[in-house]
Amino acid sequence: MAEDSVDIIIDRIRSAYGTNRVEDALAILLELHPADRAEVFNLLTDAEKSALFSLLDVPTTADLLEELEDEEALEAIVSLSPERLADVLDEMEPDEAADLLGDLTLEQATAALAEMEDAEEVIPLLGYPDQTAGGLMTTSFVALRRHTTTEQAIQFLRQVRPEIEIPYYLYVVDREKRLIGVVGFRELVISNPSDTMDSIMDPDVRYISVGTDQEEVARLMTRYDLAAVPVVDDQHRLVGVITHDDILDVIEEEATEDIYRLANVFDTDLDPQSPISEQLKGRLPWVYLNMVTALFASWVITNFEGLIAQVAILAAFQSVVAGLGGNTASQNVAMIVRALALGKIDPKKLWKVTIRQVLVGMLQGIAVGIVIGFGVALWQNNLYLGVILALAMVGNMIVAGIIGTLVPLGLRAIGLDPALASSVLVTAVTDSAGFFIFLSLASLFITYL
Amino acid sequence: MAEDSVDIIIDRIRSAYGTNRVEDALAILLELHPADRAEVFNLLTDAEKSALFSLLDVPTTADLLEELEDEEALEAIVSLSPERLADVLDEMEPDEAADLLGDLTLEQATAALAEMEDAEEVIPLLGYPDQTAGGLMTTSFVALRRHTTTEQAIQFLRQVRPEIEIPYYLYVVDREKRLIGVVGFRELVISNPSDTMDSIMDPDVRYISVGTDQEEVARLMTRYDLAAVPVVDDQHRLVGVITHDDILDVIEEEATEDIYRLANVFDTDLDPQSPISEQLKGRLPWVYLNMVTALFASWVITNFEGLIAQVAILAAFQSVVAGLGGNTASQNVAMIVRALALGKIDPKKLWKVTIRQVLVGMLQGIAVGIVIGFGVALWQNNLYLGVILALAMVGNMIVAGIIGTLVPLGLRAIGLDPALASSVLVTAVTDSAGFFIFLSLASLFITYL
Repeated sequence: MAEDSVDIIIDRIRSAYGTNRVEDALAILLELHPADRAEVFNLLTDAEKSALFSLLDVPTTADLLEELEDEEALEAIVSLSPERLADVLDEMEPDEAADLLGDLTLEQATAALAEMEDAEEVIPLLGYPDQTAGGLMTTSFVALRRHTTTEQAIQFLRQVRPEIEIPYYLYVVDREKRLIGVVGFRELVISNPSDTMDSIMDPDVRYISVGTDQEEVARLMTRYDLAAVPVVDDQHRLVGVITHDDILDVIEEEATEDIYRLANVFDTDLDPQSPISEQLKGRLPWVYLNMVTALFASWVITNFEGLIAQVAILAAFQSVVAGLGGNTASQNVAMIVRALALGKIDPKKLWKVTIRQVLVGMLQGIAVGIVIGFGVALWQNNLYLGVILALAMVGNMIVAGIIGTLVPLGLRAIGLDPALASSVLVTAVTDSAGFFIFLSLASLFITYL
Repeated sequence: MAEDSVDIIIDRIRSAYGTNRVEDALAILLELHPADRAEVFNLLTDAEKSALFSLLDVPTTADLLEELEDEEALEAIVSLSPERLADVLDEMEPDEAADLLGDLTLEQATAALAEMEDAEEVIPLLGYPDQTAGGLMTTSFVALRRHTTTEQAIQFLRQVRPEIEIPYYLYVVDREKRLIGVVGFRELVISNPSDTMDSIMDPDVRYISVGTDQEEVARLMTRYDLAAVPVVDDQHRLVGVITHDDILDVIEEEATEDIYRLANVFDTDLDPQSPISEQLKGRLPWVYLNMVTALFASWVITNFEGLIAQVAILAAFQSVVAGLGGNTASQNVAMIVRALALGKIDPKKLWKVTIRQVLVGMLQGIAVGIVIGFGVALWQNNLYLGVILALAMVGNMIVAGIIGTLVPLGLRAIGLDPALASSVLVTAVTDSAGFFIFLSLASLFITYL
């Protein structure tokens, strides 16, 4: 929905609400697609929200809660009685209901579960961590036995109609509920009524284990262009299904996480409209960390205080060496982080990759060193300053190549997020090394400067 | 497929090929899922590739080309005659065939099109830019008229069986081929044979215009959880369909682009395994740009050469002011870039967002300034140095807040990618401003230092 139509709709709702036509305001809200309704709802005032929310019927409330962000959903449900909340949770997709229950206090969650009719669909999901296949999957899927005919399958689908939310595939399981095949709705449509699932299913079905990390799930579904993937437990029993829309959210979440971590914003939920206090909580600790690393680099320079007092011009160029090293290191980190995220680095070739990235750093150092060395030698009319600058540039770019590659690879190797090798940590090294190399070289050649 | 199984398969292919059992090598390749086959194929030597490629039948060749990256596909097809290439293109999905044709020389493309049987499916796609809905969509979809019954539709599907590659929806069009509704395969399954499309279709179908940018397509499909979206021309005629798997690629591409641009890597196709010469081509120009901005910052410092000669310790702390400013600016840029990419900033609230981000910068400046001011005053036993450092920090963080917010927003406003406000450009300002503010303050208070 375009921005201006959102504004128009909010104005209409507001003017209806403001003149006590709450029912009219509700009618406008109900006309919208659930995704748009959630956006509009979010932009209302608290008073408007609670007035309208209390008028929604159970299915509409369930839809709205599914579309709202976790925190917004929590705010919206405070006014609901445990009985009403249980009705709404029964109506929600089991995976969404489990997510919401997981955000409640233990007391609230227990009260709601006690009142729910379909609690048994949701309870198994509560045990899975959010960022695993188990946390993403829904338990509302259709599983058939191998001797079921197409006709029986269609009959069955007509009966359970309102419950199916995954319109792409049916799964075939054996007596022990172990996954043995998949049937697309398309095959169902074009088969003979007497064909059994056995004969029309694809037995070579791709599946995911329930504990698999969500990034791995996203990679598999992207790679094989899957609209949905079945999830099995350690006995190979079918326990859930993950659909493409869950994966889109995961991919966007993971990209945001990488972008934020590389820029030292460590709370992925932040955006420019987040309250100032939350922004400071998610950003300031890393600025403080940067302060510590920057002071370390300052300490490196203080060791050359006498040198700088003699040749003050060095102070003008030390930062160029440090800064360009940081630039090259950041390039390396970004490339390694992204390649790891997309599964593009062959673990057998880590050394080859490292050597290549260091070579790229060195060549960038030579390329920039020659130009800047000449330029500064002419500008400052000081050949030795140019030579020192060029040499320091090459040296620091090699450091940048090594650090920018090994730090993210090393973090990954010990099971941490490679994006933690963000600019602060890696440039801490290139800054200090840059100052040290440049000023050390200057000390050696001080008689010529 | 796990990395080790890729290696095992390559070893098996290689040993078969090495002992002249090319047919065995082929058989191993053919057992794989097309996506895995493409990965394995890519890792073979040129000689192995061309030997095996020439043995593939037309449908397998088509599958392989669909899975390979653009450049790899171009390399693979050089050995094909125009006739053979035409057969393969006929077998490919129309959108994939159009992509490949678009990468050929005009001469090659014309020769292949002249030989193709289904050229009329592909030709309309050639005119659409790659990054628009027209460039993403396929023309192989099923469109039915409103009076078609479920039974007729199923009959029709049984006939065209091999051609449908979009197993989720059927579209309903009027006499002028204008889109009027959508029917899921699920509805088809559970309807009565005599129901017409009219009665079971959802007339409120979401669609995309053929010229829409791919990022906008991705946003719409993510927002409304669509597995496929129909594409219409300016007469509202149905011209194609975009499926969820195309969108996954778009989302990953856009995220890579943002991450790379923010880190000053300007060729999105690069990864750590790219040849050194290509890496230098995509990275070095931005290091040179950084060199220019860094030299500008150096020039700022040269204006204070006399000051630094007197108080050399200033050289140790000037970089702290510059660096922390750069850190805060990068945080702002990342947050704005990501929020714009995900459509999270309300254009009516740009000023509110800007003011908030500047306030965050100022507060971070105060928070860091107090700590670092005290710390350095004690460390260097120089109260005024601490005060100057603290004041400069606040000043530069305000600059960082302004630049880190306005530059990406401004780039967007003039139609450029906000991620171009990458670290080099924004930190050029925070570096120069940091040096200038700190050293100017030091000049004012020089008698106390």
